[in-house]
Amino acid sequence: MIYSQVLSQTNFVNEDELMYPFQERGLQFGDGIYEVIRVYQGKYYLMNEHVDRLFRSAEAVKLTLPFTKEKLFQLLDNLLKVNQVKGDAKVYLQATRGSALRDHVFPDVEANFYAYVQELPRPIEKLTNGVAAITQPDVRWQNCYIKSLNLLPNVLAKQEAKERGAFEAILHRDETVTECSSSNVYIVKDGKIHTHPETNNILHGCVRSRVKVLARQLDISIIEKAFSIDDLQQADEVFLSSSTAEVMPIVEINGNKVHSGEPGPVTKKLQKAYEEDAGLTTSIFAQVR
Amino acid sequence: MIYSQVLSQTNFVNEDELMYPFQERGLQFGDGIYEVIRVYQGKYYLMNEHVDRLFRSAEAVKLTLPFTKEKLFQLLDNLLKVNQVKGDAKVYLQATRGSALRDHVFPDVEANFYAYVQELPRPIEKLTNGVAAITQPDVRWQNCYIKSLNLLPNVLAKQEAKERGAFEAILHRDETVTECSSSNVYIVKDGKIHTHPETNNILHGCVRSRVKVLARQLDISIIEKAFSIDDLQQADEVFLSSSTAEVMPIVEINGNKVHSGEPGPVTKKLQKAYEEDAGLTTSIFAQVR
Repeated sequence: MIYSQVLSQTNFVNEDELMYPFQERGLQFGDGIYEVIRVYQGKYYLMNEHVDRLFRSAEAVKLTLPFTKEKLFQLLDNLLKVNQVKGDAKVYLQATRGSALRDHVFPDVEANFYAYVQELPRPIEKLTNGVAAITQPDVRWQNCYIKSLNLLPNVLAKQEAKERGAFEAILHRDETVTECSSSNVYIVKDGKIHTHPETNNILHGCVRSRVKVLARQLDISIIEKAFSIDDLQQADEVFLSSSTAEVMPIVEINGNKVHSGEPGPVTKKLQKAYEEDAGLTTSIFAQVR
Repeated sequence: MIYSQVLSQTNFVNEDELMYPFQERGLQFGDGIYEVIRVYQGKYYLMNEHVDRLFRSAEAVKLTLPFTKEKLFQLLDNLLKVNQVKGDAKVYLQATRGSALRDHVFPDVEANFYAYVQELPRPIEKLTNGVAAITQPDVRWQNCYIKSLNLLPNVLAKQEAKERGAFEAILHRDETVTECSSSNVYIVKDGKIHTHPETNNILHGCVRSRVKVLARQLDISIIEKAFSIDDLQQADEVFLSSSTAEVMPIVEINGNKVHSGEPGPVTKKLQKAYEEDAGLTTSIFAQVR
């Protein structure tokens, strides 16, 4: 369910009124950037990190956002207020280079911006039991650190996963695992977490950053070094992270069980730490609350 | 100028009435494909080739177009008729995977399709004198043969060209020249034309295909083998091709003249053959008509 009041530039409009002309640069070029921010019990989680990344993406694609960070914080706060959001949700926001006669070169118009809130319960069953994944070649462009609207390869990889009965596609450039189609990926080997470093080839996930902090607090080593498909198949545990999937165990890859086929102890520790960090009132651990 | 009647699915609507909801897969994922078809004196040029490629792109991204080829021919013919197009123009058409609640996996909705006509005189001055280009790393994805709406890297390359006083950006993967941001590229060396082969790394241009035919008719060798940036800089002639730019001489690269800095003889022969092939009534060669 989408909450009825959506942000269009700095105004609120009813969601069925928010329309764009066919000459819109998001629509014709994917010429824009976006963010998805988690909301728990009516409050943003990791909001600063998401807003910072939006501005970094904007700078990387030379897009001038039509507001300051301070103004955006205010707008996003108001978005939850006017919709009286009290439960778990996500906020989607995007900015494109505006509406103008089609031409690759930048038009002299203001960026288009919108944001909306969608109800989103925690994926309790998947978090508890883990999910299946497939592996897929990473055919994306070379600037995956930019959270851009050019998502066709991600869409195709995710669809392939779904058609093969899986939740996610783990992407690899040659033998090197990068990330998933819409999440970061990690392996655990001998008690240590390994994940791809923050290069141009992966999105610098906000939950990924938080996982690093949580791991350190738990005294678990986290090594930011690329690992291979072989490493993935030999791992003790595999998990992914994203704003909507949180810290999610991967228990099956290409039809083969990861280790025992159950969520592993390191993953579970991180999931518990995540719940505490986000101040959640629901839990996948019956004993916690 | 955009002609007032635009195609939306199989209906004609006024251009200011064609709007899309914010939950549109072109707008949120660039999840769609497109074509630009040249119109001379109110008639399509290379229309079969463009329609065939649209269907190939659709198949490559598993998008079901809401019409057959025959129906599309009819729709595009009507588009020129209802707008009483008599002059030079281009038709832009795109299809996306539809409007649906945002989710990477394919929605169960019909594809969105639209097409419009825009007035477009031949770029006589540029065709006559040639244009400047810059070189830029090709950072795009690995399936550039698909004419998809994921055009952000193309937009950024073209903008960089404009900011450096050039018309196009010639892209290269490492040392290998692939194509330009929105056109194919060729060099002439010792009377022979060289251009990148039709792999996944370039768009299989409709004008490019026609250039091959025209070259053969003129008894000019055309070698489809990748060439390097070095080859580019040592070339006797360089030119590009696209539906809107036709066969266009490149006379300067990164501020350095190509050979004499004038359009070369092979390029001119092809330009003349192009004018004849397209049955043009205008010409860049004063003596032709």
